[in-house]
Amino acid sequence: MVFTLIKEDRETGARAGRVATPHGIFHTPAFMPVGTYGAVKTLSPDDLKVLGAEIILSNTYHLFLRPGPDLIKDLGGLHRFMMWKGPILTDSGGFQVYSLSSLRRVTDEGVIFRSHLDGGTLHILTPEKVIEIQEALGSDIVTCLDECIPYPATREEAERAVERTTSWAKRCRVAFKGEGQALFGIVQGGMFRDLRERSAMELMEIGFDGYAIGGLSVGEDEGTRNRVLDDLVPLLPPESPRYLMGIGRPEDIVEAVARGVDMFDCVLPTRNGRNGMLFTSYGRLVIKNAIYRRDERPVDEECGCYTCRNFSRAYLRHLYTIGEPLGIRLNTIHNLYYYLRLMERIREAIEKGRFAEFRREFYSRREGLSETETKGGEGVV
Amino acid sequence: MVFTLIKEDRETGARAGRVATPHGIFHTPAFMPVGTYGAVKTLSPDDLKVLGAEIILSNTYHLFLRPGPDLIKDLGGLHRFMMWKGPILTDSGGFQVYSLSSLRRVTDEGVIFRSHLDGGTLHILTPEKVIEIQEALGSDIVTCLDECIPYPATREEAERAVERTTSWAKRCRVAFKGEGQALFGIVQGGMFRDLRERSAMELMEIGFDGYAIGGLSVGEDEGTRNRVLDDLVPLLPPESPRYLMGIGRPEDIVEAVARGVDMFDCVLPTRNGRNGMLFTSYGRLVIKNAIYRRDERPVDEECGCYTCRNFSRAYLRHLYTIGEPLGIRLNTIHNLYYYLRLMERIREAIEKGRFAEFRREFYSRREGLSETETKGGEGVV
Repeated sequence: MVFTLIKEDRETGARAGRVATPHGIFHTPAFMPVGTYGAVKTLSPDDLKVLGAEIILSNTYHLFLRPGPDLIKDLGGLHRFMMWKGPILTDSGGFQVYSLSSLRRVTDEGVIFRSHLDGGTLHILTPEKVIEIQEALGSDIVTCLDECIPYPATREEAERAVERTTSWAKRCRVAFKGEGQALFGIVQGGMFRDLRERSAMELMEIGFDGYAIGGLSVGEDEGTRNRVLDDLVPLLPPESPRYLMGIGRPEDIVEAVARGVDMFDCVLPTRNGRNGMLFTSYGRLVIKNAIYRRDERPVDEECGCYTCRNFSRAYLRHLYTIGEPLGIRLNTIHNLYYYLRLMERIREAIEKGRFAEFRREFYSRREGLSETETKGGEGVV
Repeated sequence: MVFTLIKEDRETGARAGRVATPHGIFHTPAFMPVGTYGAVKTLSPDDLKVLGAEIILSNTYHLFLRPGPDLIKDLGGLHRFMMWKGPILTDSGGFQVYSLSSLRRVTDEGVIFRSHLDGGTLHILTPEKVIEIQEALGSDIVTCLDECIPYPATREEAERAVERTTSWAKRCRVAFKGEGQALFGIVQGGMFRDLRERSAMELMEIGFDGYAIGGLSVGEDEGTRNRVLDDLVPLLPPESPRYLMGIGRPEDIVEAVARGVDMFDCVLPTRNGRNGMLFTSYGRLVIKNAIYRRDERPVDEECGCYTCRNFSRAYLRHLYTIGEPLGIRLNTIHNLYYYLRLMERIREAIEKGRFAEFRREFYSRREGLSETETKGGEGVV
């Protein structure tokens, strides 16, 4: 993997770059659609290509349980299995163990948990094991096992998690063969400035191809998160990509880009697509609202996605009402288009040296809109 | 609507033709994918176009309940609402009233029923009403309200249904404005040869653009159904298309084509796609079977559909197992491709004067396979 910095913003920490992987190039700041089980829900690889997705994320935890890494390896790896020919990043599965499994015990050795599927089978993930799984999957970017902590957490909990995360990162580094794959370390440390710094320094000491920031968007407010990023990101090596895990809303991404983050993933565009909440340039639109029953307009008149070029709000509302999977697909296409186009506009703005201006415009268009307010007769929230 | 006969088979009743409608041409024998609620489940209009669908069917009963014909009319008609630019045939809703609604009462006036959705609201469909609804939808081919009877039915029941169907057909003919739409009558008469003849004669007396054959595939065996077709079809005017409603399996279609039927619709390819049962040139394949867990082959090595050109049985089985809608879409694409390609091969064979040969080959490839048998290690049923 080769990361090339193309441009750094003068007013903010924003930067534009390019990452070359064995499965092609992706441009940063990048958004990675989430393909949990080896499929971005409802979308084919062709859909993703048309949308302009350059890299996707897939979940090690889920693929470990179904269909299993051995099967995917035997069938030629994850790229071939799902027929996605571009780059893939896999997470380590650690976060899902914490958020999904019914019983878990963290020891220095690794994490023991019961599958969230049958609730019975016991599994263990160790640093060596998550590397082995991700090598079987054949993803382009592999991530280390880390220890996630609840929020809020005590300093003692956060410190122990940093120590364990560093120790596991060392073991991952040793186990990792590096044949055509890159390895990212994950910074932990909760909301404690010095622990974040310690975690980053220890990981940089080991040395990774990129640095992921874990343990955010766990319940903290935006101010707290931005402060963590303000303090942490400048410590990370400028020559490596920085990946903010599991974040976030469009505004979260704009803010993190301004602080120097290069890569993002989030289930919001896909999950909200399934729930009928659509992202637009002027805020969010809840397609099931009765107000759209006879609305001939597209979701966003400024949007160029397949959904907006063809279908009315009335038709999308109808599909939502009858529970038609085509509706979920059309919503997902729209939302991912919105996210991917947002990243494109962010990159353009950075490259043209006008990111700060872009950021102001981004907010001014949404002025007066909040997630819980409805604006006039628009049903936009 | 203009129907042009291109070729008649010498050995069988099979014929190839072409139907011109305001929304384009479709070739016969034709299969119409079923888009119940204004969407062929999981497929976009682009998917249907790529598959080579030339005409689709939509259900008046369902669209009457949701979102309602007034709404669709206000939004520019069904073609524009769902963005399908080709021909559409709508059924009259009669069959769904019989098969879905919880309470119904048939009088000479029409059918009173409770919606299957809320089980409470009372609705009435009269011959005039179903024409009005289909005119609001703007379909290219409109069908008359008919009375469907259970199977088996007494001679008395079948006779009364024929009388009512004729009386309703007259009222439909009177109510029908014919602005850019064609009207099909529906032949009833159960399994009684003389009643089928009477029904056909009475409808031909009224005069329609095409003749649908209703009340088959209701539980009768293949021999009985083929006998009804053998007796009935030669009575129908050769210059009009003949449409066998709701049928059927590939073999049912081949047999009905041999007896002179021109148009078909059936939920089998779409419904079976959702259930993971896939049609192939050598029989049926149940994708959820464990035997496909590691099977790298496409569903049908001879198939040129998007699904078979890209994905393994193992991947489709995985998608089925995790309940991923992409799997349903890929299965539906495969099954509809199979049906539409079958119709293409049937048309080619008729045009080249070798339909009888085609029919023999069709069966010889499936030799030894039945719907309930598994062949060797293939898991084909």
